[in-house]
Amino acid sequence: MILKQAGKTKDVYQCDGMNLLLKFKDDVTGEDGVFNPGANHVGLTMDGIGNENLRMSKYFFELINQSGISTHFVSADLNDNTMIVKEAQVFGQGVEVICRYVAKGSFVKRYGAYIEDGQPLNAYVEMTLKDDLREDPLITSQGLEILNIMDLETYNLITKMTQSICKLIQEELHNHDLDLLDIKLEFGLNTQSNTIMLIDEVSTGNMRVAKNGIVLKPFELSQYF
Amino acid sequence: MILKQAGKTKDVYQCDGMNLLLKFKDDVTGEDGVFNPGANHVGLTMDGIGNENLRMSKYFFELINQSGISTHFVSADLNDNTMIVKEAQVFGQGVEVICRYVAKGSFVKRYGAYIEDGQPLNAYVEMTLKDDLREDPLITSQGLEILNIMDLETYNLITKMTQSICKLIQEELHNHDLDLLDIKLEFGLNTQSNTIMLIDEVSTGNMRVAKNGIVLKPFELSQYF
Repeated sequence: MILKQAGKTKDVYQCDGMNLLLKFKDDVTGEDGVFNPGANHVGLTMDGIGNENLRMSKYFFELINQSGISTHFVSADLNDNTMIVKEAQVFGQGVEVICRYVAKGSFVKRYGAYIEDGQPLNAYVEMTLKDDLREDPLITSQGLEILNIMDLETYNLITKMTQSICKLIQEELHNHDLDLLDIKLEFGLNTQSNTIMLIDEVSTGNMRVAKNGIVLKPFELSQYF
Repeated sequence: MILKQAGKTKDVYQCDGMNLLLKFKDDVTGEDGVFNPGANHVGLTMDGIGNENLRMSKYFFELINQSGISTHFVSADLNDNTMIVKEAQVFGQGVEVICRYVAKGSFVKRYGAYIEDGQPLNAYVEMTLKDDLREDPLITSQGLEILNIMDLETYNLITKMTQSICKLIQEELHNHDLDLLDIKLEFGLNTQSNTIMLIDEVSTGNMRVAKNGIVLKPFELSQYF
């Protein structure tokens, strides 16, 4: 198989046909050796976390697919840490869609004059550009449009899909007495069907989850799935 | 008169009734002694620029008032560097509304992966929070709404007012063969009439203007008005 892209937490290989193979790694994002799902570079390695994230992703992708929302997920091989997915065309060089239930991280960093860490936000959605060099800048729907990254119709559709997906995830976490604080999703265009689908992963790597007010570490969260 | 607020480029005094008096100063925003209308702290002092900015503001506020768009402008005293304005309630701790005709400054800093300095933008409007500490962060209409700074209806109204005002300013500059690159406006609520109006100033301090492709320095621009 041909390595298509070496990612931060996953490597991407071209399969036969229109599918890709994602190889989950044990690298996680963070800073100074501390895990942070909001960070945009690899901060540390955690033995076995790639397998945990794959299992958790499989669980949630199957749940989301069953609910009728399109995802890129086809199948997962937990013995090999690999996932088969449908090929997707990302928006521009990639857009991250953040859904927030509680003010944390970059939101507080930006708007700390108006909100304190930990205050509730009601499934608030915002988008940032994947751009390590420019620290994933926030962008408005008008900005996405003028830079030819995404039109307003797609922006509104992705916002709605995000809120539906996150509601499912939030409810699933609630069943384990876990609280979703915020989550970062990615979407892409299925070029065969010309439809938008959820891509990337749904795991400890892209959500902040708390139990009794304490934010869980990756292995503390993954054990529930 | 009572000093209400010592600003970066203007001091604000409470007049009798509902009016305020703005005293234009010779301080301008910039960095390392270089003028930059996009900067958010005083970078240098330019003898006489307060008077130039007051004259230019008077010119443009009268033009905008005549077009039927509400502003806070009442009168100006060029001998005293003062302007009488209607009192306004700002949104939150103040919101800046930027209208861009050409990609410059913070827009390129954020979106340089997609656009180069100098590329055209078609009266693109974005809003930032006035917050020196957090370097005037960008905010979406949804963000303004969730932080109770501005509702969507007001956001849309201010966006439209901005584009109308900037079209007037752009046309006026064109008459002198000058090109408006970008401009930063402020709006406030006239609490007596409960209507939105343009506030602050319209001068060399809040616009980037070029002649034959060269960005003009404050005194080079103000001489036209």
